[in-house]
Amino acid sequence: MDDCIFCKIIRGEIPSAKVYEDDEVYAFLDLGQVTEGHTLVIPKKHARNTFDLPDDTAAELFRRVPKIARALKEALPIQGLNILNNNEEVASQSVFHCHIHLIPRYSKSDDFGLKWKDNADWYTKDRYQEIAELIAAKVD
Amino acid sequence: MDDCIFCKIIRGEIPSAKVYEDDEVYAFLDLGQVTEGHTLVIPKKHARNTFDLPDDTAAELFRRVPKIARALKEALPIQGLNILNNNEEVASQSVFHCHIHLIPRYSKSDDFGLKWKDNADWYTKDRYQEIAELIAAKVD
Repeated sequence: MDDCIFCKIIRGEIPSAKVYEDDEVYAFLDLGQVTEGHTLVIPKKHARNTFDLPDDTAAELFRRVPKIARALKEALPIQGLNILNNNEEVASQSVFHCHIHLIPRYSKSDDFGLKWKDNADWYTKDRYQEIAELIAAKVD
Repeated sequence: MDDCIFCKIIRGEIPSAKVYEDDEVYAFLDLGQVTEGHTLVIPKKHARNTFDLPDDTAAELFRRVPKIARALKEALPIQGLNILNNNEEVASQSVFHCHIHLIPRYSKSDDFGLKWKDNADWYTKDRYQEIAELIAAKVD
């Protein structure tokens, strides 16, 4: 897309610190570097986010993720990795070209973390089943 | 693996609220339900995490994610979705069978959130390039 910042990066119209590129996928350092080595992996074909991602594009995008993850582990003294994909503004998506964050973790107290409330106490076995059936009925 | 809780769920030895299943992938509600509809998508073939995921398994795993994401949007009044994969304990992995969290978002103040510090101020153009080259050299 003409006015998409990530499409411009793929076309080389905006410079980026490139980590990997092939026919389908481009990977480069996130300017924000939440932790050192923070990398974005994006499909070359524009899609707003994962809701709009064709199945084949999704498959080819994630096919490259393990080798980039292993490269991060070999290149930097990381202890773990969070892989994150945000969809829509409520979920912190700010650039509307689908992207997967690879966020290296050096310690539990570094600059990335999760707010995570376990709500298992609220649910009965029947309620789990009811929600699962609602979703299952919509998978095409 | 014999003693893996997710392998037991796949084999039906432990009950789960199933959302989707085919030859390669199994999806079910996370017991924790950080937000309602919180779903785990896992490969049937055991792997510790994404570092150990064969390329084909990664591709087939994520191929199913967009359609499950769309099903969540159709089944529930969600406004967005965070897709998360945690690798190693420092990154909050607690079950060591690779799994992708699909966490529906209903508002910015629901029970999931990100701690996210932007460190762009610390980096020079040369330093971005240096880190990118370190990683790029290790991608096989």
